[in-house]
Amino acid sequence: MNNFVFYSPTEFVFGKDTDIQTGTLAKKYNARKAMIVYGGGSIIRSGLLQRIEDSLQQAGVDYVKLGGVQPNPTDPKVYEGIELARKEGVDFMLPVGGGSVIDTAKAIAAGVPYEGDFWDFYIGKAKVKKALKVGVVLTIPAAGSEGSGNTVITKLEGLQKLSLRVPELLRPVFAVMNPELTYTLPPYQTACGIADMMVHIMERYFTNTPDVEISDRLCEGTLMAIIKEAYKVKQNPNDYEARANIMWCGTIAHNGTCGVGCEEDWASHFLEHEISAVYNVTHGAGLAVIVPAWMTFMAEHNPKKIARFANRVFGVPENEDLEEMALAGISRLKHFFRYMGLPVNFKELGIEHPDIELLVKKLHENKGELVGNYVKLNKEYSKEIFELACK
Amino acid sequence: MNNFVFYSPTEFVFGKDTDIQTGTLAKKYNARKAMIVYGGGSIIRSGLLQRIEDSLQQAGVDYVKLGGVQPNPTDPKVYEGIELARKEGVDFMLPVGGGSVIDTAKAIAAGVPYEGDFWDFYIGKAKVKKALKVGVVLTIPAAGSEGSGNTVITKLEGLQKLSLRVPELLRPVFAVMNPELTYTLPPYQTACGIADMMVHIMERYFTNTPDVEISDRLCEGTLMAIIKEAYKVKQNPNDYEARANIMWCGTIAHNGTCGVGCEEDWASHFLEHEISAVYNVTHGAGLAVIVPAWMTFMAEHNPKKIARFANRVFGVPENEDLEEMALAGISRLKHFFRYMGLPVNFKELGIEHPDIELLVKKLHENKGELVGNYVKLNKEYSKEIFELACK
Repeated sequence: MNNFVFYSPTEFVFGKDTDIQTGTLAKKYNARKAMIVYGGGSIIRSGLLQRIEDSLQQAGVDYVKLGGVQPNPTDPKVYEGIELARKEGVDFMLPVGGGSVIDTAKAIAAGVPYEGDFWDFYIGKAKVKKALKVGVVLTIPAAGSEGSGNTVITKLEGLQKLSLRVPELLRPVFAVMNPELTYTLPPYQTACGIADMMVHIMERYFTNTPDVEISDRLCEGTLMAIIKEAYKVKQNPNDYEARANIMWCGTIAHNGTCGVGCEEDWASHFLEHEISAVYNVTHGAGLAVIVPAWMTFMAEHNPKKIARFANRVFGVPENEDLEEMALAGISRLKHFFRYMGLPVNFKELGIEHPDIELLVKKLHENKGELVGNYVKLNKEYSKEIFELACK
Repeated sequence: MNNFVFYSPTEFVFGKDTDIQTGTLAKKYNARKAMIVYGGGSIIRSGLLQRIEDSLQQAGVDYVKLGGVQPNPTDPKVYEGIELARKEGVDFMLPVGGGSVIDTAKAIAAGVPYEGDFWDFYIGKAKVKKALKVGVVLTIPAAGSEGSGNTVITKLEGLQKLSLRVPELLRPVFAVMNPELTYTLPPYQTACGIADMMVHIMERYFTNTPDVEISDRLCEGTLMAIIKEAYKVKQNPNDYEARANIMWCGTIAHNGTCGVGCEEDWASHFLEHEISAVYNVTHGAGLAVIVPAWMTFMAEHNPKKIARFANRVFGVPENEDLEEMALAGISRLKHFFRYMGLPVNFKELGIEHPDIELLVKKLHENKGELVGNYVKLNKEYSKEIFELACK
């Protein structure tokens, strides 16, 4: 087990009707003027936005609103937010939505007190030294951004999709999580969220670090819970218990609970970021395509943890042939993804002829010669995985 | 799943050689003058105390020392600490040890800024409104006090053992956890710690709250990891990986990770507190006696979760007769405890003729008519469980 720091200071307020506590929480964390950041019209139609506004008013917290954040959020909205926040004297970011909305709010939080271009942080040209506080109302369990210090933004010019990690400043101080808010998520979006959180765990689970039994068990247990509850949600989108289990799994998948003491991988995420940057597909759907391909490659090159995943998560019987076990597990994973309505290859993702040369080129330009850790991927290996994702 | 708040803001710094970071961490959390609290001579002999002192000096943090905390810590040491802290102008508590040392430090932390008797907090006569900060160097994985806002102290007069829970003020701001420090723990103490952390999980796992799949999986996974690594530690006390796994399990057993959204039980802890208060046995050993007895009672009265525990944690095959499954699981648990060198009945605990009338009387005096939640225990039930613990 490697040395590690576990630090998850976010206050997670979880359960029915918790969204009406938002104003009180913002006040508790010293918000005077908040910026509510959101996406499309669903939170207006559902009445959630109004409830949040009411609760801020009751708590005596002033606010402005910034709507229109798109999936795979891009830099123009961040610039717009930074300008508005400065003009209005905003001191607290309050994203109401999923990962795209939260990540945009984090980018604004870092950009407001910085004199230069916020994109400097994402390309490593500058370090975040100060940021507005962020508090979250989560409506889409997927990205885990409510409990992480990460943000991913795409620069439209050049379609560069990059992540930034500043836990000590960009991790939300609170996250309000009402599973009832997720009843109305369309099945496809629910499924994409489930794929996203599963892969957050798998990026940590697929490690060569030996003897991390507690980490393995937490990863496996969370994956098993997600899969079981996903079947229930697919049957009945208004199953509170299933929605609640999945929502909490999405958080612990990415707040450090799973994967302590392991060298993490993240190659699948980096491979996918190139797909969603170029083809603007949903991140979770891209992952459902790339991860089985990545695992198939690994079944040949380093099957050990893939075989353990097959056995412990999907009940594939133990067998001396680890590659065979691994392939059986991948087959069950694909079956599960398909049942949830997810694509498992490029064609099903709506990309008949992916430009693999371009994807490989961008990947290694952005991430260097070698990507990932479980097996370090050079250009040839990345290409092979993208090709496996065509099958 | 019930509504819940998950809030674990402690910074856990885990791994080899981490104890030399203690001074820097104390400084980071604004310590000017710390009180190092410790137990017997082992941390002096091992050189740990000297390393902590050196690291405080290097960080420019002044300190005083308070040694001699005993297992099942009592009020006189708390009064001594409060007086010393006031005299010396201490503003930060730095316990170096296990649960007894940490709980004593927390009691002092609450007592210093309070004009009345610190015991007022434990009997509910006053609320903690202010406390010194606490940072921990953990040497015994067991109580989980490094990540909790709880403290348990025994008042010598009347042998009243009571707990206090003030997460917002008494939860440590940091916990330094070097598994190497636990190599020298005697096997019996190691085993008692393992029983303690296992029961912290079981108090949460044995619940009637339905559909808490993620909570169940995290509890079961952590228990399985503890059991596997416990066998390894028993074989080789210097197995770093096994020590590391167990140490982290002890923390997540009690910081809220396990058991989200469940109505918790805690009857076994309350039953045991009376045993260790009257007979001054080690808490973990008392739990190893009382928990199988409590489970045996439950196998008859409410077998559902006991049977699931038997199946998922100890591999007892599924069976329509839940009571039979439960009893098979209890048998395997007892076998495990015995293998670890723990007692599983009063006699093995060294108490030939326990004064059951007294234990029952004190329990319900301290905790009311009904104790626990999984099945609420009246005096008759409590008596039955104490009697089962004689077998």
